[in-house]
Amino acid sequence: MTAVPDFDTNSPKAVRAAIRSGAYRGFTNAVARRHVQGNLMVVPAAHADDFAAYCALNPRALPVLGRSRPGSPFIPSLGEDLDLRTDTGGYMVFRGGELVDTPCEVASVWRDDLVAFVLGCSFSFEGVLQHHGVRLRHLDEGNVSAMYETGIATRAAGPFGGPLVVSMRALRAADAIRAIGVSRHYPEFHGEPVHLGDPSLIGIADLADSYGGHGLKTLHADELPVFWACGATAQTAALQARLPLCITHFKAHMVVTDLPVDMARATPSE
Amino acid sequence: MTAVPDFDTNSPKAVRAAIRSGAYRGFTNAVARRHVQGNLMVVPAAHADDFAAYCALNPRALPVLGRSRPGSPFIPSLGEDLDLRTDTGGYMVFRGGELVDTPCEVASVWRDDLVAFVLGCSFSFEGVLQHHGVRLRHLDEGNVSAMYETGIATRAAGPFGGPLVVSMRALRAADAIRAIGVSRHYPEFHGEPVHLGDPSLIGIADLADSYGGHGLKTLHADELPVFWACGATAQTAALQARLPLCITHFKAHMVVTDLPVDMARATPSE
Repeated sequence: MTAVPDFDTNSPKAVRAAIRSGAYRGFTNAVARRHVQGNLMVVPAAHADDFAAYCALNPRALPVLGRSRPGSPFIPSLGEDLDLRTDTGGYMVFRGGELVDTPCEVASVWRDDLVAFVLGCSFSFEGVLQHHGVRLRHLDEGNVSAMYETGIATRAAGPFGGPLVVSMRALRAADAIRAIGVSRHYPEFHGEPVHLGDPSLIGIADLADSYGGHGLKTLHADELPVFWACGATAQTAALQARLPLCITHFKAHMVVTDLPVDMARATPSE
Repeated sequence: MTAVPDFDTNSPKAVRAAIRSGAYRGFTNAVARRHVQGNLMVVPAAHADDFAAYCALNPRALPVLGRSRPGSPFIPSLGEDLDLRTDTGGYMVFRGGELVDTPCEVASVWRDDLVAFVLGCSFSFEGVLQHHGVRLRHLDEGNVSAMYETGIATRAAGPFGGPLVVSMRALRAADAIRAIGVSRHYPEFHGEPVHLGDPSLIGIADLADSYGGHGLKTLHADELPVFWACGATAQTAALQARLPLCITHFKAHMVVTDLPVDMARATPSE
């Protein structure tokens, strides 16, 4: 039985406090659904400009919502009390391209030369899609969207490069049409899809073989797979770059910001 | 060998004059591509309000661009010199639900109690789609889009009802995504698609079996069928209503208006 959270799940500040205290350890797609969430990517300052260039070259996958000053774990424009060392539900720590730890906080490994990037995440547009009447079966089933490495190469910058990673949602045709029309108005959350239909056309051999193995990977007979560029592209690039140190959020535990999602930006369809 | 037209194919007025004189007998999707084209539906005045109500109940298929006064073959808002009896490349004349003639002009059967409706047509958004970089293979191949009767019922009004008719375009995924995003901004040209993917989900058993038998009906391995509501829905409804007299355009020979198509309404995608 899941305990009922005893904090305001709609308040980003309350959600962050619950995460910080350890009271909340769930996926963040279930909370603060009207506020922007983001991918976390922390790299040494020596690599920060290359990473920023990589994001700029691949804006569909890597829309930058904020960047910290060297050594600072704070990005005040995203949340006044936001501490990127403690306020994400889980972290992955990579050294030399190897995953070495998945801690709940990274204050102990933080360094004075680290720069944090927060990148747009599809969790934010999922709320918008639902607001516009799109059924997201993976959410109805308490799951997250599946991710896949594609055969599409990103545009490289410095040591950063590698395949585009996408997230997939199984949608009925009418919902796919609506989701495409809505999501294109949100470039900071990956914009319109990069593909729909036959996965093999973008180098995905088997939907059952998702990135990390998790997420909703099955299609009903009346559903199409719809693929959006995914911020996890940054993780793949950072692994490939074999940085001495790199910290990211742990899958589906995102940075919860105070930025409200503008639900009304997508005009209702005729 | 096709003769090169000796009139300004970009000018609606010149196109209409060429049609009126018999100099042009081709499909109108090849001419006046930056101006709005429409379906023609002419019914006796006694049925005009029912038909208008039918259009209002099914706006995706039947967006009304103009309506004439009883007995008048003119709709000046659509073209100062437009004469609906002579300026469409071909007509179909129905009596009691039966096709009795396909003349090049209908001046001889015009009556003082006829009311003409011009309804939005997908030919108009095809120009917009191409403007936004969408490849339309049926146009590249000198063809028109195929149409299909679906299993989707329209909302009836008076004697008018029956199945929704759709047009289909075979699009690559990236073009389908772009086409969806663009077309939803043009409700007067049928707006966003009603379906994409598996045709059987909307009651189309076989893509080879198109309405009237014509149009591009084949799919390449990397293409999806994308379906838009179609103004031919009005013809099916008029046949079913068994009106004493009903006149429509002949397939793919549309009413060419002076209204410019606003290419810029759809914002470019990120």
